[in-house]
Amino acid sequence: MSSTEAFVPGPRAQVPGAAAGPLAGLSFAVKDLIDVAGVPTGGGNPDWPRFAATPSRHAWVVQTLLDAGASVTGKTITDEVSLGILGENAHDGTPLNPAAPGRVPGGSSSGSASAVAAKACDFALGTDTGGSVRVPSSFCGLYGIRPTHGRIDFTGIAVQAPGSDTCGWFARDAATFARVGEVLFGSALPVTLPTTLLVAEDAFGFADENVQQALAPAVGRLAALTGQRRDITLAPQGLSIWQRAQRILQASEAWRTFQPWLDGHNPRLAFSVARSLVQGSMMTDAERNAASLMRMEACARLRLLLPAGTILCLPTTPFPAPQKGLPLHQLDPLRERISCLTSQGGLTGVPQVNLPGATVDGAPVGLSIIGARGSDLDLLRVAVAFEEQAAEKA
Amino acid sequence: MSSTEAFVPGPRAQVPGAAAGPLAGLSFAVKDLIDVAGVPTGGGNPDWPRFAATPSRHAWVVQTLLDAGASVTGKTITDEVSLGILGENAHDGTPLNPAAPGRVPGGSSSGSASAVAAKACDFALGTDTGGSVRVPSSFCGLYGIRPTHGRIDFTGIAVQAPGSDTCGWFARDAATFARVGEVLFGSALPVTLPTTLLVAEDAFGFADENVQQALAPAVGRLAALTGQRRDITLAPQGLSIWQRAQRILQASEAWRTFQPWLDGHNPRLAFSVARSLVQGSMMTDAERNAASLMRMEACARLRLLLPAGTILCLPTTPFPAPQKGLPLHQLDPLRERISCLTSQGGLTGVPQVNLPGATVDGAPVGLSIIGARGSDLDLLRVAVAFEEQAAEKA
Repeated sequence: MSSTEAFVPGPRAQVPGAAAGPLAGLSFAVKDLIDVAGVPTGGGNPDWPRFAATPSRHAWVVQTLLDAGASVTGKTITDEVSLGILGENAHDGTPLNPAAPGRVPGGSSSGSASAVAAKACDFALGTDTGGSVRVPSSFCGLYGIRPTHGRIDFTGIAVQAPGSDTCGWFARDAATFARVGEVLFGSALPVTLPTTLLVAEDAFGFADENVQQALAPAVGRLAALTGQRRDITLAPQGLSIWQRAQRILQASEAWRTFQPWLDGHNPRLAFSVARSLVQGSMMTDAERNAASLMRMEACARLRLLLPAGTILCLPTTPFPAPQKGLPLHQLDPLRERISCLTSQGGLTGVPQVNLPGATVDGAPVGLSIIGARGSDLDLLRVAVAFEEQAAEKA
Repeated sequence: MSSTEAFVPGPRAQVPGAAAGPLAGLSFAVKDLIDVAGVPTGGGNPDWPRFAATPSRHAWVVQTLLDAGASVTGKTITDEVSLGILGENAHDGTPLNPAAPGRVPGGSSSGSASAVAAKACDFALGTDTGGSVRVPSSFCGLYGIRPTHGRIDFTGIAVQAPGSDTCGWFARDAATFARVGEVLFGSALPVTLPTTLLVAEDAFGFADENVQQALAPAVGRLAALTGQRRDITLAPQGLSIWQRAQRILQASEAWRTFQPWLDGHNPRLAFSVARSLVQGSMMTDAERNAASLMRMEACARLRLLLPAGTILCLPTTPFPAPQKGLPLHQLDPLRERISCLTSQGGLTGVPQVNLPGATVDGAPVGLSIIGARGSDLDLLRVAVAFEEQAAEKA
């Protein structure tokens, strides 16, 4: 099964926005885990809508964007119930990666990234628990944000792992990307830029060598924007240790979330998705307790590294998008490796923005910036400056 | 999802049999794991036919029945790739149990049992690895046989666990049931009946009390046919210990069988089926080694119990068919308990025949007879005598 469609099959859900407002005239697509009133929320699984009633209200985030003048132009394909970071859905197919056809778009917000990259809308909403906005924005060459955990109201969005779930968005240009943020965060961009750039050596060392090299100029441009650059280690315990802790916490929470659905409906799932849920069911209290302590250490580490005025950069993914249709024994190690670079988000709740960083073997790969919790608008400000700087150079 | 259809969706596969032969004029249905030339073998899963090429030849068993004059009248719904003993298929629905509407038909040969019970054909083919003919014949009130392991050629049938897989069949009347056996075993029924009946006290003790009581008259009739009756213990180690050994061996083999499909195609599966496969992937060599030793002990036990002229009886299932649509936390313990009564088949390879034994709460429950390896025709002979005896009484 494969598909070049970013939108869910069937009639397109369309809702006009308010006539006036800061986003008037813009169109946006909505990941099919986020409620649009009157439209069944598909969740990327044929047996999900039977479990979740058709919503009578828009999700908070959708309503806020509509009130600001933007219009819904469709609901987009997602990995099943947000479990996946590659974007291959066994039921609905794999949305096209317009920046690298033949490769996966990344997931779980696969269709949202695909729709924006294909210029089918101006921006699109996604969710990010373990990397579901960051990975597709890296693979499709887009701006993408995972906001500070808890900052965007999650009402009307299907929960996966509440300790890590966030709602973010994608755009092709930094100006649109930032305008959406001003509306959703209810505040204007700051005037000043951060003054220190930390470069996470351990994270860069974990990326493919040609990715490290390809991202070097973008890191240099970021350093030029901030002034100071300092090379540091992000995870003293090891990125793979953080990844394991996040995996335990996220999979345990996902099991708790979906267990009533699995028990009552015995739904059809891709084997890899069911396997991941079963693994979540087998985590022990001892593992969860150890992972919770590791989360506290990781949070403390990021607070220490990221005072006001400091941001940190790392490769969003260790490599560009893999080819579509690989067997699981090839995909599984790729998935694990990607999540070594993304796990700090779900673990600590800090905001992260993907910048279109470079092209490797003809496919995009992103550069991420991270700031302290609550610094989302500072990161958007950097994205705008990063884009302006590129325009000046050109 | 639910369905009252026994046959797989789409045009009915029909193949006329030879003009003359011992089965001329009879029609039979074929479980959709068994090849009919030119018809994709569906396997009860939408992603199975993409993995298995459309067969160009009939399975040995189908060809043999066609040559004997019987005609194929359709392919029947099965639990996904034969993994299940209740008969609820998340993709194709649950075939009707004509003997107890509202209850499951039993599986995995669910549609074959349903079609025979609904008189849509004279007999039907199934497979039985862990109980897939025995359980639906008990739940639908039919004659059903799990032949001696290895006696019926398995060519053209989808493998699950080769150490336990068998091909059997269902019929409403013992005469038809036995005629099919004479064709497939290539030999006539014996003239004489067994002379000793063993009653497996541990197995009867494991059934619901009203099932024990309801089956008592049928046990009495069997004893009258054979002459001698002796109460014995089938599994000195415990039926639950045998069940655990069979579960380890069967699930390990099933994992080995399906792993290339899962790896290469990441198919859509009901959660319970995927979970069972994942559990199979986690069995250790130490567990397999211990289970193999237990299998040797169980085989020795049955050789000792069942010299020529001796058969053994036990309840086929501990209770009649459960209601359809129960949640997994209610189904899982039922499944485990059923397999405590069926595991000796896959573990030791002895033949077993289900006789329509009794009715409990308006639903059928079967009485099984078991003989030594190779005694299939002796069991069919008993079935014929059992039915004749009932007719004489009536």
